[in-house]
Amino acid sequence: MKNTKRAAVVLSGCGNRDGAEITEAVSTLIALSEAGAQVEIFAPDIECKVEDHRTSQPTDETRNILTEAARIARGRIRPLSELRAGDFDCLAFPGGTGAALNLCTWFAQGADCQVIPDAERVIREFYQAEKPIAAICIAPALIARVLGSKGITVTVGAHNETSAEVAKTGAHVEACAADDFVTDRDHRIVTSPAYMYSEATPHQVFTGIRKAIRELVEMA
Amino acid sequence: MKNTKRAAVVLSGCGNRDGAEITEAVSTLIALSEAGAQVEIFAPDIECKVEDHRTSQPTDETRNILTEAARIARGRIRPLSELRAGDFDCLAFPGGTGAALNLCTWFAQGADCQVIPDAERVIREFYQAEKPIAAICIAPALIARVLGSKGITVTVGAHNETSAEVAKTGAHVEACAADDFVTDRDHRIVTSPAYMYSEATPHQVFTGIRKAIRELVEMA
Repeated sequence: MKNTKRAAVVLSGCGNRDGAEITEAVSTLIALSEAGAQVEIFAPDIECKVEDHRTSQPTDETRNILTEAARIARGRIRPLSELRAGDFDCLAFPGGTGAALNLCTWFAQGADCQVIPDAERVIREFYQAEKPIAAICIAPALIARVLGSKGITVTVGAHNETSAEVAKTGAHVEACAADDFVTDRDHRIVTSPAYMYSEATPHQVFTGIRKAIRELVEMA
Repeated sequence: MKNTKRAAVVLSGCGNRDGAEITEAVSTLIALSEAGAQVEIFAPDIECKVEDHRTSQPTDETRNILTEAARIARGRIRPLSELRAGDFDCLAFPGGTGAALNLCTWFAQGADCQVIPDAERVIREFYQAEKPIAAICIAPALIARVLGSKGITVTVGAHNETSAEVAKTGAHVEACAADDFVTDRDHRIVTSPAYMYSEATPHQVFTGIRKAIRELVEMA
């Protein structure tokens, strides 16, 4: 009988311009349930700046990341501070601006960015426990900031300025199509570029994430 | 060569408790892109009350439905007032509380509810043009309110108080599993229950919606 794998998913809000990219988050949850994983969802209990997704303009508003991420999670969500690697077999970070703005300061500081303590802690805990981590879209930059010095291999889509910046962390960076993924079985890191290709279709994004999540659960 | 079908998707916000159910909305968009459809997304440019999705409590806040739905649409969205059946081959309504609270007053008034004028207009336009309509979760209640007297057949999941209320519109109501759909080829109405089963998994919801959308595009 197949053991049920326990997966933790970390969201960074609800919306591609200031939080978790919604299609990537939902694709991750569909793929995990398809793979038979038992899923719990987490987000940091902190405030973030709100961007108007219709006009693409910043606003004066702030919202709570955990409360907004609960929209994707249908209310079944816990603070990131409660996430322990010991309770799970694998970890997944969907992308979206939130992964590089709310979980770390990548957009402002690139490879020298600060990572929020709970995000850095859970990435290190899962890595040290030899439990696999998946990261989508720009989220591999977050993983590379924490684990790049280990020589992990990731993708952030095409080779460009972003991939060059990720390489400064020490990570190896591979090019990858929107509907595909890169796996580093030595370090148990799985990545898929998704909306790093801004013109990707929802089905291409889903296909790449589905492949990545299947690999994640297989490694778990 | 296969003609590209043009699909309009109507969202009612962003979040299952006060807007469009996010997994249902994304599943609809993935399935439409998988089926090769060309998609445009619409939402009404009106305010709605906000519910805290972490605590499941009402708040004093209001948000604009079009602006919030833009989070799911990645900014590519237009006001519902601009949607014309003549520009499309088919129409889809994901569910969520928003479909029964923002697009009509179903939750307060059931089969006697009021439908916002643009929602009623587009449903009648597509029906009269013999272009198929898909509705997910509770959204079939909205369709039934407008077209029930035509004798359309829909599902809202299991037989219960909700299905009995929908039947008062004149619609025939069939029971259906979360991962399946009901089609009415005479009236070109396709429905899938999705999170009418609140314990459904994301993959069951995706599977039912994917089947429904495949049928929608085939009929278009």
